[in-house]
Amino acid sequence: MELVVDQEVNIRFSEVDSMGVVWHGNHVKYFEDGREAFGKEYNLEYMDVYRKGFFMPIVSINCEYKKPIQYEQTVIVRTKYIPKKASKLIFEYTLISKETGETLAEGKTVQVFINHNRELQLVTPPFFEEWKSSHGIIHQ
Amino acid sequence: MELVVDQEVNIRFSEVDSMGVVWHGNHVKYFEDGREAFGKEYNLEYMDVYRKGFFMPIVSINCEYKKPIQYEQTVIVRTKYIPKKASKLIFEYTLISKETGETLAEGKTVQVFINHNRELQLVTPPFFEEWKSSHGIIHQ
Amino acid sequence: MELVVDQEVNIRFSEVDSMGVVWHGNHVKYFEDGREAFGKEYNLEYMDVYRKGFFMPIVSINCEYKKPIQYEQTVIVRTKYIPKKASKLIFEYTLISKETGETLAEGKTVQVFINHNRELQLVTPPFFEEWKSSHGIIHQ
Amino acid sequence: MELVVDQEVNIRFSEVDSMGVVWHGNHVKYFEDGREAFGKEYNLEYMDVYRKGFFMPIVSINCEYKKPIQYEQTVIVRTKYIPKKASKLIFEYTLISKETGETLAEGKTVQVFINHNRELQLVTPPFFEEWKSSHGIIHQ
Repeated sequence: MELVVDQEVNIRFSEVDSMGVVWHGNHVKYFEDGREAFGKEYNLEYMDVYRKGFFMPIVSINCEYKKPIQYEQTVIVRTKYIPKKASKLIFEYTLISKETGETLAEGKTVQVFINHNRELQLVTPPFFEEWKSSHGIIHQ
Repeated sequence: MELVVDQEVNIRFSEVDSMGVVWHGNHVKYFEDGREAFGKEYNLEYMDVYRKGFFMPIVSINCEYKKPIQYEQTVIVRTKYIPKKASKLIFEYTLISKETGETLAEGKTVQVFINHNRELQLVTPPFFEEWKSSHGIIHQ
Repeated sequence: MELVVDQEVNIRFSEVDSMGVVWHGNHVKYFEDGREAFGKEYNLEYMDVYRKGFFMPIVSINCEYKKPIQYEQTVIVRTKYIPKKASKLIFEYTLISKETGETLAEGKTVQVFINHNRELQLVTPPFFEEWKSSHGIIHQ
Repeated sequence: MELVVDQEVNIRFSEVDSMGVVWHGNHVKYFEDGREAFGKEYNLEYMDVYRKGFFMPIVSINCEYKKPIQYEQTVIVRTKYIPKKASKLIFEYTLISKETGETLAEGKTVQVFINHNRELQLVTPPFFEEWKSSHGIIHQ
């Protein structure tokens, strides 16, 4: 089963640069919007995880820019969970023009688990193993 | 004695909007740059205050925009401490063009003191009374 | 007739500071969200005005912070048009907790009209006079 | 010859998140600070390129986060030009703790050239070929 959530993005006037398009650093915020929408849909919100005793800092991000984003466009961020055996949380993102269906950007983030003492969890925390099985994620 | 600090501001490309000038919300960041430069100069940094047991949240801000700020301009933020008897910390800011000396914007912030339990301090905390006297601030 | 629009605000994780509350500069973004929602509702969007030949830069802003905003709160920005005879556009904003109805912050912006040559319009542009009459704004 | 510039980064209070470390999206701003410092050093500033008739939009970015950045840290961004025959501009970035010399993050951006009509330049623009030879960049 594929875990994926589509979320409309709120593009702010202040996010458009002097070239008249969304400044490239703002795509990172849209990815976060997508991750939060995913968390809301699948019970994996920042505060849920925090209460389980963990943070999930990002250790890697990338973004490929396909088309500039205009202020007046309506943009959808599609956030897809990528199952991994390792003690990591991986998402892939696609920014899509609602009007034309075109792909505007693609990206990926990798998150790890640390506890409240900031210690890296080399083994997947039990709460996340449970989350995975409750959503039918099975590693071959 | 007047307590005032001049600090050059780092204007980022991402802070310029599609009208080709610095987006108005970014002036708030420049005020903060000024406040930090002031804190560094006069031993009133965020972390100094934190270690004394307090935060100084902003409860009021205003900004009057006189001239648009262009990306290529060099901007100075002049931060001036405004002495008050009340348990408050007040700064006035002037954004100045380094090239022409023109005033680009003027603003003001009001901060209060809260302790780490988030309780408002109606009486000026002793550390801040000491800070004031060490800098020759006398209220008539 | 009162022109007012309520809009739910998207609070981003990245907008929360190390004190655990929304950083004070982000309220300016929420005001802009409110202004855009107002523009959408009452045909006064940035691009509408641009096509009429004008920009509406902000010349004054202020914000009074009543309560800190937490990441998990749902916040409504209420944007109210304040009628003026002068060649200005004035909005008042209230940030309201959706959960408790409490006022979290109050603010105000003043905008002026400039044409595409960046010339200040001391007389209200005709398109804005029309906008006012079409919305029943009568100055006594 | 290696073209590389070290620039101290201004870490803002507003860039630190509720986990007490710099929010991951802000590293993109530090990379831009590095790119601008590079442009200033080697005559490749945004406005220089603009006046030659071009923009250099970013088409790809990535960042690997090695250590969290604290508010009180002093951070250096090291920006290194990576010579390519293709009509592209590639930089690698290292964020370094000034205090300890540790690597805090590593990243890379790829930029392309478009003219003022937003047309992609598949062949390296002459001004950039000149820039390369004037800095001794020779492709084998």
